[in-house]
Amino acid sequence: MAIDIKAHFTFTLDQATDVLLQFEAAAIPEQTILSNDTQLSEASHMARVPAQDAIGERIWLRANGEFRVDYTARVEVQRLLADVGELKRMDPHELPGEAVEYLFDSRYCQADRMQSFVEDEFGRLEGGARIIAMRDWMAENFIYTPGSSNSNTTAVDTFVERRGICRDYAHVMIALARASTIPARFVSCYAPGVDPPDFHAVAEVFLADPTVPGGGAWHIVDATHMADPAETVKIGIGRDAADVSFMTTFGMAQFGDKQISVRASE
Amino acid sequence: MAIDIKAHFTFTLDQATDVLLQFEAAAIPEQTILSNDTQLSEASHMARVPAQDAIGERIWLRANGEFRVDYTARVEVQRLLADVGELKRMDPHELPGEAVEYLFDSRYCQADRMQSFVEDEFGRLEGGARIIAMRDWMAENFIYTPGSSNSNTTAVDTFVERRGICRDYAHVMIALARASTIPARFVSCYAPGVDPPDFHAVAEVFLADPTVPGGGAWHIVDATHMADPAETVKIGIGRDAADVSFMTTFGMAQFGDKQISVRASE
Amino acid sequence: MAIDIKAHFTFTLDQATDVLLQFEAAAIPEQTILSNDTQLSEASHMARVPAQDAIGERIWLRANGEFRVDYTARVEVQRLLADVGELKRMDPHELPGEAVEYLFDSRYCQADRMQSFVEDEFGRLEGGARIIAMRDWMAENFIYTPGSSNSNTTAVDTFVERRGICRDYAHVMIALARASTIPARFVSCYAPGVDPPDFHAVAEVFLADPTVPGGGAWHIVDATHMADPAETVKIGIGRDAADVSFMTTFGMAQFGDKQISVRASE
Amino acid sequence: MAIDIKAHFTFTLDQATDVLLQFEAAAIPEQTILSNDTQLSEASHMARVPAQDAIGERIWLRANGEFRVDYTARVEVQRLLADVGELKRMDPHELPGEAVEYLFDSRYCQADRMQSFVEDEFGRLEGGARIIAMRDWMAENFIYTPGSSNSNTTAVDTFVERRGICRDYAHVMIALARASTIPARFVSCYAPGVDPPDFHAVAEVFLADPTVPGGGAWHIVDATHMADPAETVKIGIGRDAADVSFMTTFGMAQFGDKQISVRASE
Repeated sequence: MAIDIKAHFTFTLDQATDVLLQFEAAAIPEQTILSNDTQLSEASHMARVPAQDAIGERIWLRANGEFRVDYTARVEVQRLLADVGELKRMDPHELPGEAVEYLFDSRYCQADRMQSFVEDEFGRLEGGARIIAMRDWMAENFIYTPGSSNSNTTAVDTFVERRGICRDYAHVMIALARASTIPARFVSCYAPGVDPPDFHAVAEVFLADPTVPGGGAWHIVDATHMADPAETVKIGIGRDAADVSFMTTFGMAQFGDKQISVRASE
Repeated sequence: MAIDIKAHFTFTLDQATDVLLQFEAAAIPEQTILSNDTQLSEASHMARVPAQDAIGERIWLRANGEFRVDYTARVEVQRLLADVGELKRMDPHELPGEAVEYLFDSRYCQADRMQSFVEDEFGRLEGGARIIAMRDWMAENFIYTPGSSNSNTTAVDTFVERRGICRDYAHVMIALARASTIPARFVSCYAPGVDPPDFHAVAEVFLADPTVPGGGAWHIVDATHMADPAETVKIGIGRDAADVSFMTTFGMAQFGDKQISVRASE
Repeated sequence: MAIDIKAHFTFTLDQATDVLLQFEAAAIPEQTILSNDTQLSEASHMARVPAQDAIGERIWLRANGEFRVDYTARVEVQRLLADVGELKRMDPHELPGEAVEYLFDSRYCQADRMQSFVEDEFGRLEGGARIIAMRDWMAENFIYTPGSSNSNTTAVDTFVERRGICRDYAHVMIALARASTIPARFVSCYAPGVDPPDFHAVAEVFLADPTVPGGGAWHIVDATHMADPAETVKIGIGRDAADVSFMTTFGMAQFGDKQISVRASE
Repeated sequence: MAIDIKAHFTFTLDQATDVLLQFEAAAIPEQTILSNDTQLSEASHMARVPAQDAIGERIWLRANGEFRVDYTARVEVQRLLADVGELKRMDPHELPGEAVEYLFDSRYCQADRMQSFVEDEFGRLEGGARIIAMRDWMAENFIYTPGSSNSNTTAVDTFVERRGICRDYAHVMIALARASTIPARFVSCYAPGVDPPDFHAVAEVFLADPTVPGGGAWHIVDATHMADPAETVKIGIGRDAADVSFMTTFGMAQFGDKQISVRASE
């Protein structure tokens, strides 16, 4: 499956300002960058650094005035897909070191607060079956509502208010999974089904790999049901949205316009 | 400087339970493990995995019944010490990839909430001078008060309540530093001056290294003033206390006793 | 129905300290104080003041050293009981002035946060039928768990954690009702069925009185199902628990013991 | 001192909706309504009910479509003014029943969280002198910043963020006073010095009346320094902003425009 991505956004800086960008498809085994082109306005400083867990890159800029980002890419997704509902949970003591940090509470995902609820509501299920039940519970009980949340909204807020956007759905999904001692992380991505077209976010959970004794793997779970894992192009990962914003400015900026287009083709 | 460490703690598990431990001095360039001995009760499963950023190790257990941990070590601290107040801030765009995640908000350190305060109170200072001013402001305005906080207490809570223990002091210090776009992380450690003797926690900030153009380094800052960086033995690091507990149980446990002894000798 | 109440509690003050008590059955039309006896240790100052909305009295003390409260009362409850599920909601614009403040958010009852949930879950029902559905939803989804909450726990916390005691159940019930624009208040009370015997708390909601055109009345709703409105003796009311603690000390106090006994007799 | 007030605002309702308004100068002893005129669009229901503590009135409406409020009044302020810094604190046990509820935490004013700070920072002062020190501390450490807060912002938020508008200043002032066991309430008002002209909010504290043994009185304290108590016309009071909004709609409404003019004349 090849995915064609176009991303364009602009912003204006009133003075020389540091900016961190992360918007490019990550070059990782599960997806091949067939072609790509990144056009950036001129900056007094530009450097690429590896992003979290070496998945994708961040771009550091020091720039001033109007800034324009134009990105096109064609990406082949070769992700191994599994029926998540059939996968087993790994016992915590089997988890590899790099998955451990995704068990812990993070800025927006207060899993400790949700343990009683998770036990009451999903306690009869284990592993992937529990994850699917959580995803379906969210789909049934939450309403996707642009404008209902902001950059301070946490998983607890969304759990109470039952409204949110992709970021909020991912945060609740992550918190529910971690409350079950299943590692879960936040994935910034492109996906064709997102409506209106925009950057997207999904959760990813770490479950046992039935083909590798003692092994495990990450699997995409999208409680908004907008992204198909077979067509999802990862930009980067983090513990939650605090880690993988497409743009972070260290100073004042006026955001301009943004246009995202993502299409699947054979 | 050689530091002699003894740590002992016990706990009881009512059924087979997964436990994550992190209490051993990390084998890292700035400190040499001269000798060490870890004695653990028998467990049905025991595995060591690298801890966060490969600093130290975590021990995964699956155990049942009474469990006892006895650890002794002699550690030579060779940390390069600097006069933090003289060090320059690195511009964000100069930061290496691995420092970036320590700029972001984490579970207990909501730096975004403290930006106005930091600008008002410390805006005239930069880099290490600002860090020292923050540390001294905390020492003057906070009272170290065992029992005043719990495992849910955040940097914002402590900032308002002006009371806390080492963990809380480190959280506020980290949040203030990040609000200044200075990377900051949480360090679990042993240190001789801690009173009453216990595991300790300090903040670490990333500042320019005057000897390496474009380079930076981490420096310990302890707003409780109990730990001397020259005598501090690191166990592990994290974004905040959520990442480096000495013991995390995935199920019910009764904690028993704990004895920590840390001495410096020539 | 006559209710026999015995309440005893003690506390110790290290220096002359102001204390506010509210533990006596309120003298109000719906319950008649057949007999009562209040024995208090000596205090340098003692004054009774009317409590909130003139329901019951608060006792101001200035005391020192050991203090003992012994209270016995026999109270006839003549409350008019209604089938709450049959009662109609009053339109907001019909509410009398004194009910209006019980529509608003209070310290522990953040009704604004629960409006989406209430609309999604109970939107097809109105008035008393909605209140009963909320009460039953709580009974089904929450577990009464002594020790699960503390004096900072809010309705939002309890809604997320699904655990609490009478105070927490009342807070969630109040928040859900106010989120439906039904006035709701907190009632501190004695009731025979409370197990273990203690002071109790329930919610009260304001619904249309079918016998008085344009009129309304308060009705007890206990989501813990421990108190029968026909046997509940009110002590006082407030917006939430912040208003009607049985004991508030303005300084340090060591609480001693507490014994409550409440029995119904013909 | 006569104050001339003009207030105009409009809103649009898409369907028949209940609305609660409170914008008229209260008829209370400390201010005389010399003349007034309230013009409201037609409504299917309109009723006046007493507002909190019988200070001022609330107007209940049921209306539809465009709605317009035009209010003019001329009010003589005869408030007894005191040098607040000279007034003594009343001991809690001397407080009259009606002041007690203003000691407790409310939705936006979490006084319990601020007790350590208040003791550390203002512990050497008592009564009115402490209140003035708090007001001046706020004036020095906070920056009045329209747009920095919203309707969810609490006193704790503002205390941390050091930015806010009149509502937020009043909330912090109230929380600091209550943390000192001084009753404090929120006052919605008109005042000439408010810039830009708008509804205003101040705190009011209850301190000993030197002319009446055992008596006390409420005194306006405005940490924004925009309102002069001698020229402040009260609309209503409450525990915090949750109680005295000038307009609360129980359904969807589009707010239109708002113009407030307040002038003092001899």
